[in-house]
Amino acid sequence: MNYKNANEFEQKLIQYRRDFHKYAEARWVEFRTSSKVAQVLSELGYDVLVGLDIIVPEECIGRPKEDLIEQEQKRAVNQGADPFWLKKMQGYTGVVGILKTKNPGPVTAFRFDIDALNNIEAKEKGHRPYDEGFVSVNEGYMHACGHDGHTAIGLGLAEVLMKMRDELCGTIKLFFQPSEEGGGGARAMVASGIADDVNYLFTGHIGLAHNGVPLNSHSIAGGCNDFLDNRRYDITFIGKAAHPCGDPHKGKNALLAACTAALNIHAIAPHGEGLSRVNVGVLNAGVSRNTIAPTAFLQIEARGDSDETAEYMEQRVLCIIKSTAQMYGLEYETKFMGSTPSAKSDKELVDVVLKTASTIEWFKEFHGEGNVGGSDDASEWMRKVQSNGGKATYIGLGADFAASFHNNYFDFDEGVLMPSVELFYKLAKEVCEKSEK
Amino acid sequence: MNYKNANEFEQKLIQYRRDFHKYAEARWVEFRTSSKVAQVLSELGYDVLVGLDIIVPEECIGRPKEDLIEQEQKRAVNQGADPFWLKKMQGYTGVVGILKTKNPGPVTAFRFDIDALNNIEAKEKGHRPYDEGFVSVNEGYMHACGHDGHTAIGLGLAEVLMKMRDELCGTIKLFFQPSEEGGGGARAMVASGIADDVNYLFTGHIGLAHNGVPLNSHSIAGGCNDFLDNRRYDITFIGKAAHPCGDPHKGKNALLAACTAALNIHAIAPHGEGLSRVNVGVLNAGVSRNTIAPTAFLQIEARGDSDETAEYMEQRVLCIIKSTAQMYGLEYETKFMGSTPSAKSDKELVDVVLKTASTIEWFKEFHGEGNVGGSDDASEWMRKVQSNGGKATYIGLGADFAASFHNNYFDFDEGVLMPSVELFYKLAKEVCEKSEK
Amino acid sequence: MNYKNANEFEQKLIQYRRDFHKYAEARWVEFRTSSKVAQVLSELGYDVLVGLDIIVPEECIGRPKEDLIEQEQKRAVNQGADPFWLKKMQGYTGVVGILKTKNPGPVTAFRFDIDALNNIEAKEKGHRPYDEGFVSVNEGYMHACGHDGHTAIGLGLAEVLMKMRDELCGTIKLFFQPSEEGGGGARAMVASGIADDVNYLFTGHIGLAHNGVPLNSHSIAGGCNDFLDNRRYDITFIGKAAHPCGDPHKGKNALLAACTAALNIHAIAPHGEGLSRVNVGVLNAGVSRNTIAPTAFLQIEARGDSDETAEYMEQRVLCIIKSTAQMYGLEYETKFMGSTPSAKSDKELVDVVLKTASTIEWFKEFHGEGNVGGSDDASEWMRKVQSNGGKATYIGLGADFAASFHNNYFDFDEGVLMPSVELFYKLAKEVCEKSEK
Amino acid sequence: MNYKNANEFEQKLIQYRRDFHKYAEARWVEFRTSSKVAQVLSELGYDVLVGLDIIVPEECIGRPKEDLIEQEQKRAVNQGADPFWLKKMQGYTGVVGILKTKNPGPVTAFRFDIDALNNIEAKEKGHRPYDEGFVSVNEGYMHACGHDGHTAIGLGLAEVLMKMRDELCGTIKLFFQPSEEGGGGARAMVASGIADDVNYLFTGHIGLAHNGVPLNSHSIAGGCNDFLDNRRYDITFIGKAAHPCGDPHKGKNALLAACTAALNIHAIAPHGEGLSRVNVGVLNAGVSRNTIAPTAFLQIEARGDSDETAEYMEQRVLCIIKSTAQMYGLEYETKFMGSTPSAKSDKELVDVVLKTASTIEWFKEFHGEGNVGGSDDASEWMRKVQSNGGKATYIGLGADFAASFHNNYFDFDEGVLMPSVELFYKLAKEVCEKSEK
Repeated sequence: MNYKNANEFEQKLIQYRRDFHKYAEARWVEFRTSSKVAQVLSELGYDVLVGLDIIVPEECIGRPKEDLIEQEQKRAVNQGADPFWLKKMQGYTGVVGILKTKNPGPVTAFRFDIDALNNIEAKEKGHRPYDEGFVSVNEGYMHACGHDGHTAIGLGLAEVLMKMRDELCGTIKLFFQPSEEGGGGARAMVASGIADDVNYLFTGHIGLAHNGVPLNSHSIAGGCNDFLDNRRYDITFIGKAAHPCGDPHKGKNALLAACTAALNIHAIAPHGEGLSRVNVGVLNAGVSRNTIAPTAFLQIEARGDSDETAEYMEQRVLCIIKSTAQMYGLEYETKFMGSTPSAKSDKELVDVVLKTASTIEWFKEFHGEGNVGGSDDASEWMRKVQSNGGKATYIGLGADFAASFHNNYFDFDEGVLMPSVELFYKLAKEVCEKSEK
Repeated sequence: MNYKNANEFEQKLIQYRRDFHKYAEARWVEFRTSSKVAQVLSELGYDVLVGLDIIVPEECIGRPKEDLIEQEQKRAVNQGADPFWLKKMQGYTGVVGILKTKNPGPVTAFRFDIDALNNIEAKEKGHRPYDEGFVSVNEGYMHACGHDGHTAIGLGLAEVLMKMRDELCGTIKLFFQPSEEGGGGARAMVASGIADDVNYLFTGHIGLAHNGVPLNSHSIAGGCNDFLDNRRYDITFIGKAAHPCGDPHKGKNALLAACTAALNIHAIAPHGEGLSRVNVGVLNAGVSRNTIAPTAFLQIEARGDSDETAEYMEQRVLCIIKSTAQMYGLEYETKFMGSTPSAKSDKELVDVVLKTASTIEWFKEFHGEGNVGGSDDASEWMRKVQSNGGKATYIGLGADFAASFHNNYFDFDEGVLMPSVELFYKLAKEVCEKSEK
Repeated sequence: MNYKNANEFEQKLIQYRRDFHKYAEARWVEFRTSSKVAQVLSELGYDVLVGLDIIVPEECIGRPKEDLIEQEQKRAVNQGADPFWLKKMQGYTGVVGILKTKNPGPVTAFRFDIDALNNIEAKEKGHRPYDEGFVSVNEGYMHACGHDGHTAIGLGLAEVLMKMRDELCGTIKLFFQPSEEGGGGARAMVASGIADDVNYLFTGHIGLAHNGVPLNSHSIAGGCNDFLDNRRYDITFIGKAAHPCGDPHKGKNALLAACTAALNIHAIAPHGEGLSRVNVGVLNAGVSRNTIAPTAFLQIEARGDSDETAEYMEQRVLCIIKSTAQMYGLEYETKFMGSTPSAKSDKELVDVVLKTASTIEWFKEFHGEGNVGGSDDASEWMRKVQSNGGKATYIGLGADFAASFHNNYFDFDEGVLMPSVELFYKLAKEVCEKSEK
Repeated sequence: MNYKNANEFEQKLIQYRRDFHKYAEARWVEFRTSSKVAQVLSELGYDVLVGLDIIVPEECIGRPKEDLIEQEQKRAVNQGADPFWLKKMQGYTGVVGILKTKNPGPVTAFRFDIDALNNIEAKEKGHRPYDEGFVSVNEGYMHACGHDGHTAIGLGLAEVLMKMRDELCGTIKLFFQPSEEGGGGARAMVASGIADDVNYLFTGHIGLAHNGVPLNSHSIAGGCNDFLDNRRYDITFIGKAAHPCGDPHKGKNALLAACTAALNIHAIAPHGEGLSRVNVGVLNAGVSRNTIAPTAFLQIEARGDSDETAEYMEQRVLCIIKSTAQMYGLEYETKFMGSTPSAKSDKELVDVVLKTASTIEWFKEFHGEGNVGGSDDASEWMRKVQSNGGKATYIGLGADFAASFHNNYFDFDEGVLMPSVELFYKLAKEVCEKSEK
C-alpha cells in the first residue's frame, strides 16, 4: 500500500484493537463499540446508519431484557460512548457506513463482526493484554475470538477507502455487525434489506483453521468451502425438589438427568460422511446442597458440514433430551436458539483474493478455498448476496495466536491488521478494474 | 394451657409464622427476622443478646461477603427491620432472650432455628402461601423447612413464659439460631459459651419423619436416636476452554467431568450396616454455548447414621472427585463446608415429653425416640449440654404438610403451633417440679 | 446334645460340607448334591422323594436347556452321583426325606437350600478351601453363600432325628431345596403341595446380617422381620451394528445404552420410608472390537422391604430401561425373572428358638427377630405354612466368615455346624412337648 | 476381458463367494477357507505355501488356545476341508500361490484377506444370504466385511493369470491373508519375508467409503490417502464381589467402572486437526444378578488419521481407564492388542489403475486417491513394499451394499466380482508393459 506514515497508521490500528479489547462487549450490548465505530465513520464522511435502522428486532436471539439493556447503555456511556449515537441506536447495536464514489460501478461490501464473548479473561502475567494494560475491564466479557481485530481492520479500511475514494467506483458499504456469537446478528441485519443490492461481498476471520490446520501469520486462504451448519438449543428440565435424606424417592432429579444427557450428547457417534460436532457448553442445575435438584438448564449446539450431518446431530441431541427427561419423569422445554447455515465462497473471488494478496509483501503462504473449522454467520450475508446473483468470499487472514479460540488466554499477532487493511482496499480497487472490463 | 383468649393467641402465632414466611431470609442474612425477634423479646422484658455477642465469626460457614451483607441489611430495613437492632448485631444474625425467675432452679433452654432456604417458592393457585398472600417476597429465599413455624412457636413461648414467670424456676434461655441449613449456625452460637450453663435443653422440628414415616398432625415423638452425620463439600474443577469445533482436543472439559462425578456419586453403593445418603445439590458448569466448559462447581453432602457410614460416604465422594479430575486432566479444589455430628435424646427427657404431651388434647399419637430422616445442627447444642452433664431432647412435632421438605410447594398445618407452645411451656414447669424433688 | 462321639460326628458334618463345597453346583444342576442327599436319607431309613415328584417345572426359572442338563448330569455321574437317583429325578433336582414317628403329633419341617452360585472361586493361598483342598472343581460354580453348610446341617440333623425318633412325635419332613439363588426353587417345590400339611417350619441361614450387623460365631437370631421383596429382570437391548469408523452414524449402540442404564439404575434415589436396594449384576454387550455394539444383555434385581418400596425400585428400573432404549433407538425385551415375597417369623417360634438355643453352650449372644440384609425364598415356604395356620421362623445362625457373601473368597466358621444340628433337633423335640400341652 | 464363457466364469466367482460366505470363519480359524484356496491354487498349477511356512506365530494376535484350534480344525474337516492341507498348515491359516512366468520381469503381488467377523448373521427373509441359502452355518461367524468376495476375486484371478501366463512377465504372488480383523494377519505374514522381493503390490476393498461417501457399484477409486492408524486394547478390571443387599459397601463394582469408562471414551473430544475415531466394541461384566460385579472386560480401539491424532485418542483412552479404575478402587490390566499403521498409495499406480479401469465397461465413475473411512492392515504390506523401493496401491472397488459394514444384514452387489478380476489381471499385464519400457 502506497500509504504514507505506514508505521503511524499501523499504531492506530493497534490502538483501535486494544481499545475494543479492553472494553469488550458481548452480543447485543456492543453500545460503546457501535458508538465508537459510528463516530469514526461519521467523522470520515460516511453516511452512517445504526441500530434499529439496520436491525430487525424479531430476528435477534438472546437479546437481554430492557432493564439490562439500559444498565449496559449506562455502562457504555461511563466508558466513553457518545449519548448522541446511543439515542440513534434505539437500544440496538450495529453500524453501517456508506460511501458513494463519483465513479459508476457495482456495490461492494465489507463485513466485520464486532462482538465479544461471555468469558472471563485471564489476568495473569504472560497474557499480553494483561501485561500491556488492555485486558477486559468488563468482567465476564472478553474478545476471545478476534472480533476486536476485525473491527479495527474495518475502521482502518474506512479511512483508506475515504482517502482513496476517487480511485474507486460505485458504492461501498461497510457492515459492522453485532452479535455473531450465537445472537443472530447477521440474520437481523440482512433482514433489514441492507445487503440486497450488494454485488461483491468480502469478509473473513483472523487465524481460523483451514482444513484442520490453524492459519499462521503470513498465510492467507482465499475462501471457504462449506461452513458448518450450526443449530443451537436451550433446554430447561423441570423436576421436583425433595429432601435428599428424608424423602429422596419423592424427588425428580433434574441435575442427574442433565448430566446423563450431557454425557450421552458428547458420546453421539460422529457422522461417517462428513464433519460433525456437538457441545454442551453450559449446564446449571439445582438450588441448594441439601435439596434434590428440581431444575436444570443446558446450552447446546450441534453442527455438521451439510444439511444431512447437521440434521443428524440435531435429531440425536433432541432424542437424548427427550429420553433423559422421560427417564427422570421431568417436564422439559426445548427452545430453538437459532442456526447458522452453511455457505461457500465463489471460486472467482477466491482467485482475485489470492492474486491480490500476492502483491502484498506480508503474505507468503497461499491457500485456495478450504474447510473452516467452525461456523460463522457470515454465511447469512454470503447466501443473500449470492441469491441475488452477486459474488462473495470469506477470507482466512493468517495470524499466530497465543491460545485456542474462546480460551481465556486468547490473543493474536497484531501484525495481521495492516496487511489486512491493505488487502481489503486493493480488493475494492480490483473489483472496479474487473467491472470495467 | 389455661390461657385466656386462646383463639386470639393462636391467631397471633399464625400471624408471626406468615410474616416470617413472607419475608424469608436464608442463612446469615436473617436480619429482618432477628430484628423482629429481638424487638418482641425486648418488649416482653427479656434480656436480649444479638449478633456478634452470641456468634463466633470463625465458625460461620458460607456467610456472604460484606457488600452483600450490607445490601441485605438495607433490604431488611426496607422490609421493616429496626436499624437499632441491626446496629447491635454488627452484621451477624441470631438472638438470645434470657429470663431470670425469682425462684431458684436449673437453667432451662429452648432452641429454635430461624433461617429459610435458597429456593424459589411456587407462585401458583393451590399453594396456600400464594393464595393467602404470604408467599415469599424475597425471590430465591423460601421457608421450605418449617423454621418460620419454629420461630413463631419461640415467640409465643416467650410471651407465655414471661406471663407465667412466677410459676417457673431458675433461668430460662431462648435461643433463636440462624443458619441451620448448612451454615454452621449452631456451632457458631455454641462456641460463644451461651449454652455452657444449660441443664435442660428442648428443641425439635415440625413434621420431620420418624423411623421413615412422616409425623402427621396430632402425633408427637419424644426424642431422637442418632441424627445422620452430615459432611459437606464444595468442589471446583478447573479445566481449559477451547473452541468446540476447531480445537476440541485442546479443551479440558470440566462440565463432562462434573457430570461423570455427579452420576457416580449418586451411584455410590449404600452402606450395608446403616443408613447412608448422598446428594449433589448444585452443579454449575461452563461459560458459553460454543466454548468447551473450562470450569465447574458442585455442592455435595454425604451423610451416614454413624461415624463409620458417614466416613465411608465421604471417602467415596472424595475418591470420585479426584478420579474424574484426573480423567479430564483438571485441577480441582475441595473445600470442606462443615459437618453436623450425630446426637441422641436422653431417655429421661423423652419420657417427660411424652407424659407432658399426653396432658394436651391435640396430641393423640405418641412415639418414643426414633430415627430422624435427616440431619439438624441441633445436635451441636445437645452434645454441648450433655457433655456438661445436662439433659437434652429433640422433639418431633407432628404436622401434616403439603409437599416434601425443601420442595417449593412446602407448607404445613398451622394447627401444630398452639399445642407446641403449650408443650414447651409445660416442660419448663415440669422441669421445676422435677428439680424440686 | 447328649450325643456320643460328638467330635467324630462334627468331623462328619465338616466332611459333608467340604464335599459339597468342592463339587459346587449352581441352580437346577445340583445333580450330584441331590443324589448324595437322597442316598444318605435313604440309607438312614427315610422315605425319599426327588426331582419331578416334588418340583413343578412351570415354576422353574432359569433352568438350562436340555442339552446342558444332560451334560451336567454326565458331569455329576463322573463326580460320583448315583445314576439310580439321577434317573428318579427325571432331570429335576431337590430332595425330600419323610420320617413318620410312632407317636402322634404335628407335621414339623426343616428346610435347607443346597445350590451354589455362578462365581469363580479364588484359587490362592490364604483361602482355606484352596489351602485344604476343597476348593470348587467345577469352574464357574462356587458355594459363596453357605448353602454347603446348610446341606451338611440337614444331613446331620437327619441322622440325629432318625436315631432319636422314638423321642419325637408326628411326622418330620426334611426339605432339601434347589435353586434358591434366583431360580424359584422354593416356589417350584411349594407348588407341588409338599408343604401343605406342615404345622411348624424351621429354616435359616448361616451368618447373615441381622439389623445391618453380621451375626458372628456364637450368636443367634430367633427370627426375622420382613425380608426384602426381590424382583428380577433380564433385559435385552437390540440395536444395530455398524463400522465404527466408516459408518458410525448408522449404528444404534446397545452397549452405550446399557452403560447409561446401569449407571442411572445404580443412581436411583433410595426410598425414604424403608430399605431399598438395586443391582445390575451382569452386563454383556457387543460382538467385536471394531463393530458398534448391536446388542446388550443385563441382569437386574430390585429390592425393597415392603410392597411399596420394592414397587418403587422396580418401576424406576423399568422406566430407565425404556428411556435408554429410546435414547439409542433400540428395541428391547424385558423378561420378568421372578420375585421373592417378604415374610415374617411368628413371634411364638422366635421365643422357642431363643429359649432352646440358651440350652446349647455354643450360643452366647441372643437376638430377637430382626431385619435380614437380603432376600431368601424361604419366604415362600413360610407364607405357605402360615397361610394354612401353621407357624414358621427363619433363624440366623451366627458364624464368622472370611469375606462378603457372594465374594469369591467367601468361607465360614465350621464351628456353627454342630450346634446348629443340635438346635434343630431340640426344636423338633420342643414342638412335641409344646403340642402335648 | 477377452475371456470365453464370461457368464459361466462369473457364476463360478459367485459360487466361490457364496461358499465362503456360508462357511464363514473368523480370524485364525480360517481352516476350511485356507484349505479350499490351497486346493484350487494347487490344481491350477501354482506353487503353494500355507500356514506356518508363511506365518510368524509371535506376531499373531488373539489366536485361540490349542484346544479350540483343534476343535475348529475338526469342524473344518466336517465342512469339507482337506486334511492334507490342514496338516501342512500346522495350525496356522493363510495361503500363498506363486506363479513364475517364462518372461523376465518384476515381482507383482496381489493380496486378498479371507477372514470373517465374530458376528451373528441375520436369519430373516429379505436378507439375501438367508433367502438364497448361503447364510452362515457357523453360528457367531459372519462375512460382514466382504472378505468372502475378496477371496473369490483372488481365486478367479488365479485362474485367469495361469491361463494367460504366457502374456505375463516376471513372478506373480497371490497372498491370501488370514486375520485382517484385529488379528495382525498382515504383520504375521509380512514378517515371514514373503513380500520382501515384491516390486508392485495391488490390494483393495469392496465398497469401502471414499472421502466419506460409500463407493457404489460401477465406481472405482485408484488409491488411498492415509488409512487411519488403529490402536487396540483389551482392558480387564478386577474389583471385589459382595452381596448387593447385605454388604454393598464392601464391593468394588467393576461393572459400573466399565460403564463409566465406556461412556467417557465415546465422549472423547474429536481432534480438531484430523479424523479421529474410538469404539468400545465389547463390554462383559459381572458374574450373577445378585452379586456386585467383581470383574469387567472391554475391547477398545482408537484411531486417527495421523500419528498425532491416533496418539491423542490412545492417550485419552488410557487416561480414562486408569481414572475409572481408581474411582472404583480396582486393579486393572491393559493389554495392547496391536495396531495398524497408516499407509498411502503411490500416485504412479493410482494413475495406472484408473487408466486400466477405464478400459473396463463396468466402471463408470472414477476417483483418484481419497480418504478411506477405516483401517486395513493392507498398510503393513504396502509399507513393506514401499520401504524396499516398490510401489503399492489400495483400490476401492465400488459395490452397492445392503447394510453397513459389520452389520448382520451386510451383503454386497456380486456384480463387482467379475470386473475386479478383469482389472487385476489387466494390471498384471500393464506392469509388464510398463517395465519393458
